[in-house]
Amino acid sequence: MIRVGIVGGTGYTGAELLRILALHKEVDITVVTSRSDAGQAISLLYPNLRGLCDIAFTHPNIESLSECDVVFFATPNGTAMLMAEELLSRNVKVIDLSADFRIKDDKEWSKWYGMAHACPDLIEHAIYGLAEVNREAIKQASLIACPGCYPTAVQLGFLPLLENNLIDPGHLIADVKSGVSGAGRSAQVSTLMSETGESFKAYAVAGHRHLTEISQGLEIAAKQPVSLTFVPHLTPMIRGIHATLYGQIVADVTEVQALFEQRYQDEFFVDVLPTGTHPDTRNVRGSNKCQIAIHQPQGGDTLVVLSVIDNLVKGAAGQAVQNMNLIFALAENQGLETVALYP
Amino acid sequence: MIRVGIVGGTGYTGAELLRILALHKEVDITVVTSRSDAGQAISLLYPNLRGLCDIAFTHPNIESLSECDVVFFATPNGTAMLMAEELLSRNVKVIDLSADFRIKDDKEWSKWYGMAHACPDLIEHAIYGLAEVNREAIKQASLIACPGCYPTAVQLGFLPLLENNLIDPGHLIADVKSGVSGAGRSAQVSTLMSETGESFKAYAVAGHRHLTEISQGLEIAAKQPVSLTFVPHLTPMIRGIHATLYGQIVADVTEVQALFEQRYQDEFFVDVLPTGTHPDTRNVRGSNKCQIAIHQPQGGDTLVVLSVIDNLVKGAAGQAVQNMNLIFALAENQGLETVALYP
Amino acid sequence: MIRVGIVGGTGYTGAELLRILALHKEVDITVVTSRSDAGQAISLLYPNLRGLCDIAFTHPNIESLSECDVVFFATPNGTAMLMAEELLSRNVKVIDLSADFRIKDDKEWSKWYGMAHACPDLIEHAIYGLAEVNREAIKQASLIACPGCYPTAVQLGFLPLLENNLIDPGHLIADVKSGVSGAGRSAQVSTLMSETGESFKAYAVAGHRHLTEISQGLEIAAKQPVSLTFVPHLTPMIRGIHATLYGQIVADVTEVQALFEQRYQDEFFVDVLPTGTHPDTRNVRGSNKCQIAIHQPQGGDTLVVLSVIDNLVKGAAGQAVQNMNLIFALAENQGLETVALYP
Amino acid sequence: MIRVGIVGGTGYTGAELLRILALHKEVDITVVTSRSDAGQAISLLYPNLRGLCDIAFTHPNIESLSECDVVFFATPNGTAMLMAEELLSRNVKVIDLSADFRIKDDKEWSKWYGMAHACPDLIEHAIYGLAEVNREAIKQASLIACPGCYPTAVQLGFLPLLENNLIDPGHLIADVKSGVSGAGRSAQVSTLMSETGESFKAYAVAGHRHLTEISQGLEIAAKQPVSLTFVPHLTPMIRGIHATLYGQIVADVTEVQALFEQRYQDEFFVDVLPTGTHPDTRNVRGSNKCQIAIHQPQGGDTLVVLSVIDNLVKGAAGQAVQNMNLIFALAENQGLETVALYP
Repeated sequence: MIRVGIVGGTGYTGAELLRILALHKEVDITVVTSRSDAGQAISLLYPNLRGLCDIAFTHPNIESLSECDVVFFATPNGTAMLMAEELLSRNVKVIDLSADFRIKDDKEWSKWYGMAHACPDLIEHAIYGLAEVNREAIKQASLIACPGCYPTAVQLGFLPLLENNLIDPGHLIADVKSGVSGAGRSAQVSTLMSETGESFKAYAVAGHRHLTEISQGLEIAAKQPVSLTFVPHLTPMIRGIHATLYGQIVADVTEVQALFEQRYQDEFFVDVLPTGTHPDTRNVRGSNKCQIAIHQPQGGDTLVVLSVIDNLVKGAAGQAVQNMNLIFALAENQGLETVALYP
Repeated sequence: MIRVGIVGGTGYTGAELLRILALHKEVDITVVTSRSDAGQAISLLYPNLRGLCDIAFTHPNIESLSECDVVFFATPNGTAMLMAEELLSRNVKVIDLSADFRIKDDKEWSKWYGMAHACPDLIEHAIYGLAEVNREAIKQASLIACPGCYPTAVQLGFLPLLENNLIDPGHLIADVKSGVSGAGRSAQVSTLMSETGESFKAYAVAGHRHLTEISQGLEIAAKQPVSLTFVPHLTPMIRGIHATLYGQIVADVTEVQALFEQRYQDEFFVDVLPTGTHPDTRNVRGSNKCQIAIHQPQGGDTLVVLSVIDNLVKGAAGQAVQNMNLIFALAENQGLETVALYP
Repeated sequence: MIRVGIVGGTGYTGAELLRILALHKEVDITVVTSRSDAGQAISLLYPNLRGLCDIAFTHPNIESLSECDVVFFATPNGTAMLMAEELLSRNVKVIDLSADFRIKDDKEWSKWYGMAHACPDLIEHAIYGLAEVNREAIKQASLIACPGCYPTAVQLGFLPLLENNLIDPGHLIADVKSGVSGAGRSAQVSTLMSETGESFKAYAVAGHRHLTEISQGLEIAAKQPVSLTFVPHLTPMIRGIHATLYGQIVADVTEVQALFEQRYQDEFFVDVLPTGTHPDTRNVRGSNKCQIAIHQPQGGDTLVVLSVIDNLVKGAAGQAVQNMNLIFALAENQGLETVALYP
Repeated sequence: MIRVGIVGGTGYTGAELLRILALHKEVDITVVTSRSDAGQAISLLYPNLRGLCDIAFTHPNIESLSECDVVFFATPNGTAMLMAEELLSRNVKVIDLSADFRIKDDKEWSKWYGMAHACPDLIEHAIYGLAEVNREAIKQASLIACPGCYPTAVQLGFLPLLENNLIDPGHLIADVKSGVSGAGRSAQVSTLMSETGESFKAYAVAGHRHLTEISQGLEIAAKQPVSLTFVPHLTPMIRGIHATLYGQIVADVTEVQALFEQRYQDEFFVDVLPTGTHPDTRNVRGSNKCQIAIHQPQGGDTLVVLSVIDNLVKGAAGQAVQNMNLIFALAENQGLETVALYP
């Protein structure tokens, strides 16, 4: 059994890790920390786990975490970078769901995240945990930087096009819609049901933190600079991300459907839908799948890719467990073979 | 492997059976029928099943269904009673999720369901599939009448009180709230999102079909006639039933919390919450659990029991699979060990 | 023009007062205070008021409020009682939407609201602002205690029955469901969309503050003590209250529909629906109406009354404006002739 | 008083016309037709209109409609074109909320709407009812083709840019999100709450009927052909459209905010928000306003315009009443001075 620690178990990504790992056959949830709820039984805060997780939250503590084989950080940005080095030095694998190790350029990171990086030297050793790109490196990794939710949906949709130079990297548009759970489980007026229910809006159009992360990934795929307009929106639902991606065609795209199917044919978690269909976020709700459809409206010069994930699963906790499975040489889909909850 | 047939696979209970059975290790989904969608791949209608269920819907047909070990009826009322006898005669177990075999008095059944019963003699052989009451009989049964969604939530909440004569059976009140998936997947104006979203209402206060079924079960528990006022409500959510039950106290209830805990201590799917808590339907969403809490407001003479289930799982497909597991001597929770999707 | 002040303009009841009063032909919104947002233009916080309300929030201040003819308190409990006396002494009418002056027994008030009352002598001078009971007193009043949202829906439903001794006052049950806007516009985890969306639960079953207020009003109507079991629930919608009321019949109720119609025949804001119907909260959304239907299921000994309001309108700001209209001898429905937003 | 007839009163645009016109001081609702509900009191179907609209639905009939000064068609496409000529010949003004007279090229119309046009000669006499473009023509018109919901939001957002040649007309992108009421009040599985709640999807990416209508309007503004990629999405809310518009900058846009403010400075119903803000559909819910914000992310070469409306008001019934007011020389905002319902 893999001994697992979770730092920051009281947010939504922490809760989702618990939901997935509670049924994972190779895992023993050993330590779950929470500054705010230390001492409280986990199942008191999360009654859906009654009977499946009988431990209590504890204060974060390097000693107890060091007894784990792997520690997940489901913490706000800026926490993992304070503890990762120490845990790695004790041979504990670290899987960070926050943004601390996602951006290779620490100055760029500081600009967006508003603080100096605590361990810039460690960044280059972190592997970006998008298995569909970095699978072999992940298997050897000690430190995983799990992709953000928006970056996962956008990259999986754009990758086959940019890897094959089918669209103009200088004019990419990602119009992305997220459920409100992406904003986390902290008390704030802006995500109250009365504020977000029955309404729809864009936000952070001037610049969102995930822009840098997405661009970094797309530039690796395109092997050249990209220019991306990224507009995130808040949708009146709890889970789900729907990315609508626009690219200006610069090459022959008659085989684009086949191209996507080939690119992802061995990927358990990326599902290219039949021509002419539209993915629906509900069909991946609670599942680690990404479903993708490709359109060329009116046969014009703009390609439209529709890419959906559950932001808490493939966009966070599920992808983190996928990475853990790879590191520990388990079946990549162990514990992740769930069917989306429909309706 | 148990060969399973599903008649009526295109409604929500059929879809939920598919969702659960697709991951059930002892089951082979052999036949799924649908008059409206025969010939269509199941995963085209339900993209959440892509890769997990590769067959197509077929026309309902006794011959093909006879090759199954068990057939689930996820059909409108009045269908199972036309096919059950033939299947039973061919040694196929029948688990009916509709109301055809729930009411022992076929005249009463006809009054509420508006048609003559096609096989009244078979009714007495049907076992009411509430494992928490009829477990041993279910294990021996060939024909199961699965309880309705409201009846499941209400009976599990009232049973310990009536079995122990703690409340007046002549003045029971069940104020029950259901998500809209309980109204099914048929095209009707009344369950459009624009009609049911952001709104709340009672319906069928003059008399709902489930009243008879609930009363029948409560009378068995109470060993005397009961008088129940049952008011169902439609809630702007998809899944979930919340029953708020009121009983007039007629005996010493100081041990009522312990009583509930004892009554359900060996029940995997009934979870009595700690004193003073309130169950939330989200904590059983997608799960086969029923969570219950008991209150005595202001120490007065009225007991309040709060009982929640997912109407499509413990209230329909999950309970049906629980029955199947019992019939085939599998672990009762096989394929049903899921964690509710929170948030 | 009536010069109006609003203390506490940044909560939902304050915002709703602004929405209603911005279009009221006899009103000039003179002062709107907010400790947290002083200095900010109102229309920046509430873009739905752009072009209709061009002033800014100011710090609460007796001097500027004294220039008003009437001041509404849309504040948390405990604020109005600190300022009411001073304003009244300067001949400013006070309409309090909080609970400060609702309970005649200040010790009982202190028990539920957790503080000593700042001006207990003033309580007896406050008129409970339920026009359907106290219309003439309201017209002469200087200080109005506006009813709470639950108390409005419950009292309007029970009044005709208790005034005419048709039901047993010793066994009243009010099973009431509220939208989440009733919990206010403060940052808290429990009313995040991810916590309250797609879920339903009861809360405060052991005792809710509105119990005392409701009982006080019902006892006046019944002219005797009442015993009420009050169970509030949180519903996944923003606006609306649905009260399902149960009473044990103790007299002839064959004329109960006519009785309700007569009781409310001159009431603009109470609408008794036809026999056999079910009110829907959407049909009063954004309106000051209360819609009521009466049922006697199966002709039994329990009466069921269904009563719906918009918690922010008839349950708060609309009722407050109705009181203002009465005090200033305007048409009672001035500024309140809106049609509920359907769908 | 203007005598008004409504053909097709039982859909959502018909219901919204009734909601608005019931409070319009210059209007007498004379005839409301419905094939399906003829004979039924309007307030029985729409209880929010109780006390405000006391007539019954009647069968559509030219004679009774001819007694009106103006007839609104809130019908499915293909109905207004069968009755318009006759009504016009009797000096009745016709305001069509359907698509029958929106497209100048009847062959193009037939391609998208799947039928031959019944009166192609009449099309050229129809005035496209977007007051912000055609105000003077509307005042003189007898036949108004009210814009569709998507076309209203998209055109108002793009117009100032195209009129001033600031963006490339050859690469326009409109990523638009609609609430489900846009799909109407007909019984269909796809808009059930269980199908659309808690989920988000694109639809009709290959080609949506509104594409032609939008392009026609944009080409008039641009005085040249345009190429538009239009992707509509279904959002889990009832009312609201949010258009996110992308244009490639081809001229100096440093004054773009001022340009929008000037373009719409005299428009009561178009509200240009301050720089840096994001419109929210809830802030126009129930109102006839369009709120717009303009962004230039990272100072790059792509302009992003955010434009929101209530699809049933400015996108349908409200805009129709705005047209009626212009035709009858009333204040343009008569009956439309409502404040959006927040929260």
